[in-house]
Amino acid sequence: MKKISKADLSIKELVSLIEEDFIKTNDLIKDQIISKVERIPQLSSHIVSLGGKRLRPILTIACAKMLNVKSDHHITLAAAVELLHTATLLHDDVVDESNFRRGKETSHTLWDNKSSILVGDYLLGKAFQLMVKTGSLECLKTLSNAAAIIAEGEVLQLVAINNINIKKNEYMKIIESKTAALFSSACEVGGIISNSSNEINKSLFSFGKNLGTSFQLIDDALDYSGKSKNLGKNIGDDFYDGKVTLPVIISYEEGNQNEKKFWEEVFEKDTRNDQDLIKANKIINKNQTIEKTLELANVYGEKAKEDLSIFPDTKIKKGLINLVNLSLIRDH
Amino acid sequence: MKKISKADLSIKELVSLIEEDFIKTNDLIKDQIISKVERIPQLSSHIVSLGGKRLRPILTIACAKMLNVKSDHHITLAAAVELLHTATLLHDDVVDESNFRRGKETSHTLWDNKSSILVGDYLLGKAFQLMVKTGSLECLKTLSNAAAIIAEGEVLQLVAINNINIKKNEYMKIIESKTAALFSSACEVGGIISNSSNEINKSLFSFGKNLGTSFQLIDDALDYSGKSKNLGKNIGDDFYDGKVTLPVIISYEEGNQNEKKFWEEVFEKDTRNDQDLIKANKIINKNQTIEKTLELANVYGEKAKEDLSIFPDTKIKKGLINLVNLSLIRDH
Repeated sequence: MKKISKADLSIKELVSLIEEDFIKTNDLIKDQIISKVERIPQLSSHIVSLGGKRLRPILTIACAKMLNVKSDHHITLAAAVELLHTATLLHDDVVDESNFRRGKETSHTLWDNKSSILVGDYLLGKAFQLMVKTGSLECLKTLSNAAAIIAEGEVLQLVAINNINIKKNEYMKIIESKTAALFSSACEVGGIISNSSNEINKSLFSFGKNLGTSFQLIDDALDYSGKSKNLGKNIGDDFYDGKVTLPVIISYEEGNQNEKKFWEEVFEKDTRNDQDLIKANKIINKNQTIEKTLELANVYGEKAKEDLSIFPDTKIKKGLINLVNLSLIRDH
Repeated sequence: MKKISKADLSIKELVSLIEEDFIKTNDLIKDQIISKVERIPQLSSHIVSLGGKRLRPILTIACAKMLNVKSDHHITLAAAVELLHTATLLHDDVVDESNFRRGKETSHTLWDNKSSILVGDYLLGKAFQLMVKTGSLECLKTLSNAAAIIAEGEVLQLVAINNINIKKNEYMKIIESKTAALFSSACEVGGIISNSSNEINKSLFSFGKNLGTSFQLIDDALDYSGKSKNLGKNIGDDFYDGKVTLPVIISYEEGNQNEKKFWEEVFEKDTRNDQDLIKANKIINKNQTIEKTLELANVYGEKAKEDLSIFPDTKIKKGLINLVNLSLIRDH
């Protein structure tokens, strides 16, 4: 049986406050993947069904509802945000050569790389079609920025593969682009579409950015320390993919000569095996690297909560704060 | 020395009428591929430099100038159209596993599939950023439609690979999606951004659709009959890729039992060799399939010219008509 994590519970709490709109969003997403070209709904349904927590559209809806949105455009935007995210997942899986996502076979394994690339492009096109429907150029602006920045971050990550000499600030730039950019735009459009002030929209953008950064750092930590199969990824994925994430960067920077040598050699190899991961985990645990990564995640989590301070205390605001808090104690 | 084809001459004539804007468009395209992540400008410059004729942005500029556009937004849109096209080329080359484009090595051969996928995504994001800058939701609408339709057409083509039983109308649907959709939107945005009437914009859309269809059919014919290296593709590319194009569809439909058997068997194989192509060409020539394909291209070319009939006779209109005429006698 699937274990329910505290993070899942915190999301469920938030979803219960916006349930009707969340259901509408999911229905709208399903409508978008209809096509006479069978491979499109087949492959899209597969990746959408793996969909995970739908955190990004939940943020869009929650931010809009917190600001008393008057139209239904936030639902359209939430669906667009999720489709944009889904498109990047399809392309990521091809790029990372991942065979599993959330414990199930990835689309490019079940079909092929070609289909995943092209269906990803299709979903990206559908995402922009939805944005256009809202008539908000400001939303289109922040989300098209996000689309370009995400891709830039993914390229940055690609060229940094196996590079043990990557600096912490360079790595934070990758996180900011590949993960935080969509979180921030997802939150900001919730404000824009509710006709909120620039100040409010900036706070939401900042909230998303800090939450997204915190979220990615926790993900990085879980890749070495996670104990449950409930993470949406396999333990050691980053390590096997040659991704030098923060736990490794800290461990390398603070390690003794032998440890430095291990990290250099293990990331010089084309592939890494289970024995390598066991050794990597030993060094990481010895240096308390996970704790240090989570400390930094906590710093960003606190910043995210500060960003919400300008809003009146409502149930949804509390839900968002709980989401930040409970993310921080996610399944270690 | 590169041979200059009649089609090139006809494009040069049109470009000479819009030269200043064409140069500005090319500069704007170059500005978009600047990024601190070196791989992005490297790979983008490579594909942009192969760029071919820049037919699509030329159409946007020409249509806008024909309608006395007042702002510079048509330049922004022309650049967006070309970036969108370039993104699809990057992904196409990965999907088709093509090693050469216009006689030069493709990006995914010089770098890797992963970079081509992600840089394609980046260029797509940049294309939408540019569209947003024009402030025209109507342009965003037609171009985001085109983005989704192109991807849908590419998937349709992918699932039809090696399928000798594809019907002519199904094949025309592929062409309409993967090629004509961007031609029509490229022309339509030239009208929209010049504040033209719906009637005018519809005519431009139809002009682009018919021109694009004609253009693709000629391309299909050239893949079997082309004599110059100046086509932007290698002779036999479609055949080797297992793409069942119109010359083959006609040849299969009208062929005798032996010919039918040849087509069935040759497309059942995983790969086709030079001997197969020689035999394919013999059958195609015997049945005058190329002539029949070009006849159909001509029908669409005539339709395209009819679409222009509502416009006053200007130099640019004549340039567009010449473009249609000379495309039809492209290098056979």
